[in-house]
Amino acid sequence: MPRPMSELRPYVHQVSRQAREASRRLATASGQQKNDWLLATAKALRERGEFLIAANAKDLEAAPGYGLTNAAIDRLKLTPPRIDAIARAMEEVVALPNPVGEVIDSNVRPNGLLVTRVRVPLGVVFFVYESRPNVTVDAAALCVKSGNAVILRGGKEAFHSNQALYRVLADTLEQGGLPRHAVQLVETTDRDAVKLFLKEKENIDVAIPRGGRSLIETVTAEATMPVIKHFDGICHAFVDRSADFEMAARIVIDGKTKRPGVCNALESVLVHKDAADSFLPLIGEQLAAAKVEVRGCPRTREFLPSARLASEQDYRTEYLDLILSMKVVDSLDDAIAHITEYGSHHTETIVTSDHANAMRFVSEVDSSAVLINASTRFNDGGELGLGAEIGISTDKFHARGPCGLRELMSYKYVVFGQGQVRG
Amino acid sequence: MPRPMSELRPYVHQVSRQAREASRRLATASGQQKNDWLLATAKALRERGEFLIAANAKDLEAAPGYGLTNAAIDRLKLTPPRIDAIARAMEEVVALPNPVGEVIDSNVRPNGLLVTRVRVPLGVVFFVYESRPNVTVDAAALCVKSGNAVILRGGKEAFHSNQALYRVLADTLEQGGLPRHAVQLVETTDRDAVKLFLKEKENIDVAIPRGGRSLIETVTAEATMPVIKHFDGICHAFVDRSADFEMAARIVIDGKTKRPGVCNALESVLVHKDAADSFLPLIGEQLAAAKVEVRGCPRTREFLPSARLASEQDYRTEYLDLILSMKVVDSLDDAIAHITEYGSHHTETIVTSDHANAMRFVSEVDSSAVLINASTRFNDGGELGLGAEIGISTDKFHARGPCGLRELMSYKYVVFGQGQVRG
Repeated sequence: MPRPMSELRPYVHQVSRQAREASRRLATASGQQKNDWLLATAKALRERGEFLIAANAKDLEAAPGYGLTNAAIDRLKLTPPRIDAIARAMEEVVALPNPVGEVIDSNVRPNGLLVTRVRVPLGVVFFVYESRPNVTVDAAALCVKSGNAVILRGGKEAFHSNQALYRVLADTLEQGGLPRHAVQLVETTDRDAVKLFLKEKENIDVAIPRGGRSLIETVTAEATMPVIKHFDGICHAFVDRSADFEMAARIVIDGKTKRPGVCNALESVLVHKDAADSFLPLIGEQLAAAKVEVRGCPRTREFLPSARLASEQDYRTEYLDLILSMKVVDSLDDAIAHITEYGSHHTETIVTSDHANAMRFVSEVDSSAVLINASTRFNDGGELGLGAEIGISTDKFHARGPCGLRELMSYKYVVFGQGQVRG
Repeated sequence: MPRPMSELRPYVHQVSRQAREASRRLATASGQQKNDWLLATAKALRERGEFLIAANAKDLEAAPGYGLTNAAIDRLKLTPPRIDAIARAMEEVVALPNPVGEVIDSNVRPNGLLVTRVRVPLGVVFFVYESRPNVTVDAAALCVKSGNAVILRGGKEAFHSNQALYRVLADTLEQGGLPRHAVQLVETTDRDAVKLFLKEKENIDVAIPRGGRSLIETVTAEATMPVIKHFDGICHAFVDRSADFEMAARIVIDGKTKRPGVCNALESVLVHKDAADSFLPLIGEQLAAAKVEVRGCPRTREFLPSARLASEQDYRTEYLDLILSMKVVDSLDDAIAHITEYGSHHTETIVTSDHANAMRFVSEVDSSAVLINASTRFNDGGELGLGAEIGISTDKFHARGPCGLRELMSYKYVVFGQGQVRG
């Protein structure tokens, strides 16, 4: 039952202030303290598996009432192997270097001042998500490791699971001597509470929504603090005239068929006109075998007559399904122009053996990741070497692409003098 | 006379779209092309001095009508030496390395993928300023060098000067083969036009207001894109018990008296209780000689009886004048707590000979610049080694402290493969 605003307002403000207070202490916690907490929590999660599974059962029971599909219910489910995987993800964060206090760059000025730029936490993260319960733990691990306090607001479908996971996190925080409000879970899934948190710009430094488009749009519209946004991934592959066509086919099949529901999946393939007669029959056969529906331009359909005719709208669509739009283009210029017009600045790849074309493509295509001869599915924190990620940014401001520890950080100038004045 | 919204709307949208178009071409312009433009413009500014001074004369004539003080009118004035200084500032930007395409970091993944993170322009900057006409040229130089198109909106007091300066910039853009809309000056000082630009989030990537608090608050409230904000500088010096008191006095006098009207000027001095009887009489004499009014706590007044009693509000005030608040504190902890409560996260310095205290101060004080044994006035793009700056950020998100070329940039991942798929 939704709570009245008169109750929500003081609750939200208190949680936000507690987070700000905790962030000040957490900012100077040692790497050892934070790692000890990660390890203790991983251990506690495994030890309290039955407690977690019992709470999860309540969510599973309520799931059909929320209209969840069987696949969604399966994703919601906690099992001993899944709890172990959540614990292992925490242990992997231990291996990442402590980013707080890292000197990013430095220079000695002519007057002898040593100027250093030092990585510091942003402060307080408000994380709103609709995902599976493991995200609760992943987000807490990344925020604490980066020295940020976090306010977690999960979805109603995982309410009891999140409460139980949070209980474990909160207990180990207290035991490890870290501020207990370093991680807080919002006790209500009331949407008005989200709106109130988004007004707390004095206490919250960044809001990160993770979920569907409407969640991100709502958070962006209401937020008074910066938001790390993750919108569509309309990802392209351009198969150049000089491409190795077997390689191109592997990259297209990998991008489209392995996990069609994710943001770095391939949605559109552009084929150079001189490559069409060799490449299109080859890929057409493989796509058909993988049950991918092709929607193509008239020139595509000359080689793939079973393809549907693509509409203008098809080229603007993130299918997240076994559907692929295709187009034959006259040149690299046309491919880049098409991507500029129809793309979403997420991920694009060129398959080519022509060095100059490869370099022009990565220079002129304005996307968070641009690849040469590799699958779009590599645009991922783990694959790019960031370690775990809290989300992917489709913005250009502050963070772009996968957001790991570094993207949750700011910096400050630390200047070492011996009495210098400017005069 | 203000134009009706029905005219402003299409005008603002056209300017914004032109900037977006220009930004695409500018993003791939070579360093040489951009430097050639900077040098040609510096030359043209000197050659067209009479034209600039004639336009400036119209602003000077209108200035008393805008209620400008004599000092403000003097700052508005263009003279041959000032035009030469503006041209020299452009030439200094030539010396900075081209930041576009710089590889920030890279790693080779176990599967052989070479992952690089490459600096790219943000895109389009909307720069709203109230300052002297030289800012028009400085901002254009920094934006073009960083590959960003810029929409300049200057104040009404410098309207004719800005138009004339812009004429020179636009002519050299066309001659140098750069997109002519890489730099645009808004033709009206109508405030409604600013509001309309702030809705153009599809075409503008960042808004930078430079001027008084009300300008920044208005831009922040109306903007639909990120804003680089510059609020108060309530800067502190903490004089530790172990300080070299002569050094501390030099740093206080430099911070307070050399340019009291700037954001990195010193506003408040905290003195360790064990330093009070040595340091306060020393600094009191020098402050009196420099005609600085001191507002102190009761313990300060034991040593400086002529000081006024400071109110709570004094400690929250950015005087921007020859006034200084002072307080005697019991410990480093109390100094840090005071700064956390009353400071504005801009610039703070500690004067000490105790290494542990110095390191605790720079770690625990959360300000854009934290200094040891140096004047707060070093928090400046030129002094910290960034080259020219377009403003100073009091935010922690994206850019913090002085904003030079690097702070006008984003990045993208460029990934070099040999056919890798994720599977």
